[in-house]
Amino acid sequence: MKIEKSSNIKKSPVMHEGAKDVEIRWLISKADGAENFAMRMFELQPGGHTPLHTHPHEHEVFIVQGRGTFVCEAQEHEFGPENVIFVPGGLEHRFKNTGDSVLRFLCLIPASAV
Amino acid sequence: MKIEKSSNIKKSPVMHEGAKDVEIRWLISKADGAENFAMRMFELQPGGHTPLHTHPHEHEVFIVQGRGTFVCEAQEHEFGPENVIFVPGGLEHRFKNTGDSVLRFLCLIPASAV
Repeated sequence: MKIEKSSNIKKSPVMHEGAKDVEIRWLISKADGAENFAMRMFELQPGGHTPLHTHPHEHEVFIVQGRGTFVCEAQEHEFGPENVIFVPGGLEHRFKNTGDSVLRFLCLIPASAV
Repeated sequence: MKIEKSSNIKKSPVMHEGAKDVEIRWLISKADGAENFAMRMFELQPGGHTPLHTHPHEHEVFIVQGRGTFVCEAQEHEFGPENVIFVPGGLEHRFKNTGDSVLRFLCLIPASAV
């Protein structure tokens, strides 16, 4: 069992090519005994974005704070707090912080993708 | 792909024996094409609680709003906003709203548990 304030969990910069001002916290993962899927918190500074990329696994996303745009297969969608986003595997996508404060969202993936 | 405000997604009462003043929204599930795990939002009124129960699958939980207690194997833990909780399968547990406003949390489970 694990119970923790998410802000107490270590934050690391995301170094992938195409990422800008993105940090990640691995809130729940295999290291905690979670065999099936992993919960991460992403934090993007204003203007920051994830890479425009594609992969076989899906994302399940919940916006905790902030506003931004989600690009999926060249279509742009705006989002705000408490929006939920499901990204099936194989679709090209990117998250961008278009607000003037930090953007924070949960993004869960299958453990097999880690 | 799905993008939606979570509050627009249908909310239903949880009728399980031992549940009190609990509602659920299935934010992302197999109906959306999510084959591996499901994201639900639980909403508990003040004094409301989930059943004290055990099952083989794990929970990954993120507290969105409110305060409460999490009982796990007869140990009580307090939690508040942005706490993260991992409940391995097989542990007896219960969530209770001990605050004076609604308690809302995300709870994700493997698709095989649905």
